[in-house]
Amino acid sequence: MKIVIDGMGGDNAPQATVEGACMAVNEYGVEIIITGDEEIINSELKKHNYDKNKISVVHTTEIIENEEKPVQAIRKKKDSSMVVALNMVKDKKADLVISAGSTGALLSGGVFIIKRIKGISRPCICATLPTINGGATMLADTGANVDCDTQNLMDFAFMTDIYAKKVLNEKNPRVALANIGSEEGKGNDLVKKSYELLKEENGINFIGNMETRDILNGVCDIVICDGFVGNIVLKTMEGSVLSLFKKLKEVMMSSTKSKLGALLMKSELKEIKDLLDYTSYGGAPFLGVDGGVIKAHGSSNAKSFKNAINQGIKFHEGKVVEEIKKYVEEKAK
Amino acid sequence: MKIVIDGMGGDNAPQATVEGACMAVNEYGVEIIITGDEEIINSELKKHNYDKNKISVVHTTEIIENEEKPVQAIRKKKDSSMVVALNMVKDKKADLVISAGSTGALLSGGVFIIKRIKGISRPCICATLPTINGGATMLADTGANVDCDTQNLMDFAFMTDIYAKKVLNEKNPRVALANIGSEEGKGNDLVKKSYELLKEENGINFIGNMETRDILNGVCDIVICDGFVGNIVLKTMEGSVLSLFKKLKEVMMSSTKSKLGALLMKSELKEIKDLLDYTSYGGAPFLGVDGGVIKAHGSSNAKSFKNAINQGIKFHEGKVVEEIKKYVEEKAK
Repeated sequence: MKIVIDGMGGDNAPQATVEGACMAVNEYGVEIIITGDEEIINSELKKHNYDKNKISVVHTTEIIENEEKPVQAIRKKKDSSMVVALNMVKDKKADLVISAGSTGALLSGGVFIIKRIKGISRPCICATLPTINGGATMLADTGANVDCDTQNLMDFAFMTDIYAKKVLNEKNPRVALANIGSEEGKGNDLVKKSYELLKEENGINFIGNMETRDILNGVCDIVICDGFVGNIVLKTMEGSVLSLFKKLKEVMMSSTKSKLGALLMKSELKEIKDLLDYTSYGGAPFLGVDGGVIKAHGSSNAKSFKNAINQGIKFHEGKVVEEIKKYVEEKAK
Repeated sequence: MKIVIDGMGGDNAPQATVEGACMAVNEYGVEIIITGDEEIINSELKKHNYDKNKISVVHTTEIIENEEKPVQAIRKKKDSSMVVALNMVKDKKADLVISAGSTGALLSGGVFIIKRIKGISRPCICATLPTINGGATMLADTGANVDCDTQNLMDFAFMTDIYAKKVLNEKNPRVALANIGSEEGKGNDLVKKSYELLKEENGINFIGNMETRDILNGVCDIVICDGFVGNIVLKTMEGSVLSLFKKLKEVMMSSTKSKLGALLMKSELKEIKDLLDYTSYGGAPFLGVDGGVIKAHGSSNAKSFKNAINQGIKFHEGKVVEEIKKYVEEKAK
């Protein structure tokens, strides 16, 4: 298999993307193409030991920045590291693209360049949330679709279910709807109607509604919602955890006694911080487009970028795209 | 002024409601009516010292439980402590009702018994969120309306603005829309359209979109959203903080060293926990009905119930209902 990497995307690119690629080649023996400024990428590559036959560079002259309007950026910057990488997947020159660059641009590119799988109403992006028991919960959609209908939510549920089974090796993932109450009949119009539809489905293990207060407690494996709500959940959670740690640090430095206390608990506090650091979970798959697209976290370091590549390998080996096409065929029957 | 209290509502009723009422009488000299089982309420009252002329009891025979369907409960249990209290506000026998009982039932009762102020599209419930800098942010709606249109959101913004000015003494509250990005043009259809409308309003200090990751950082005074999203934000925040403290406790107990560290930091950790304990912020006003309705937190103890009563006093003195009616008149011009 061949993976193409957007070498210039992400806060720590190209150092982290190139180093992550070298680590992945050494660890998994995978073949990698890196798009980006040849000179810069090559000078980064020189810093690492790796099998020279496994990494090639495709020269590009443009970079899509986070601040740019996604659709416009994708259309205008045809020689950007991201667009060139996306085109390689479209043209079957690579099996999968991984980028830590602009989420909006990558999603737009997924839809406009690689294109939606026929029969899927909307592709979705799935974040992996760490849980306090050391597990993880998938949340879909987390921002690709801000306005959704029931068919969208059904597709998200089935696609994420396939991903969890094929990539995360979960046998019978528990699927829940994000809601404001756990009882049947709760929620807004979209959620109530989606509940009715999911209840009737035999293909997935639907366990009902989940209150988002339980999101970190690992009560289910997959949480389904529209992209507006999913993004709100993700950011509220992230913000709450960060604010709390900030406050914790502040009070820990407030007196000699508390400083000593903090010192004694240092490794334990770091353990929690690492546990809840969702950037370490590699990338978020963009499901429903006709090729592999993995969004690595913008602040990925080399190790988390390598993790995203590993996720890409499993995505390809698990034939996620083909499985989603099978679901579409079944649905059409 | 006269306040009626649903004596039997809440996890700690009637102990906490009665004690809170006695504290409020002693501290604020306010007149209070308590609805509930006469015998039980009186035996609770006997435990406290207070001005006997200031508290009276209205006997009721039923209690609305949290598990009951709100509308049904309000309709059927006509002699419940909550319905009798709501009727006293409707009949102008009391200025304001405070309940720690079922949120759904109280909101339904507010609409069906006290009734909506004519010209307000939908009443909303506003939670007060503590922020890490020791301040607070109001969030509306947090669950009264799961499906909203732009007019609803406009009404929520204006009503909460009035509340912040009249009850919290904020001179020029900063109003923001809860969104998935801070730039103009972000969000779902509802939020984008509401942004356009709020931008044109001179009556309120609209500062644009707010990403919910900043919710604990105190970047604005009022956050507006539909009730589904608001409830999701509230519960995600609450759940993240609780899960994190749970994990913190777990790792603190994991070794002798960390136990010692935790002991040295005990007061600081409690300080953070107290800071973020939103149950201590008294109650949530239900804005847009033709009378004062304050929902005290279900787990209120006597002190937080007393705080909710204090909030009710300010609500009445600030003439919030009258101010909302003025807003409706202005809007109609």
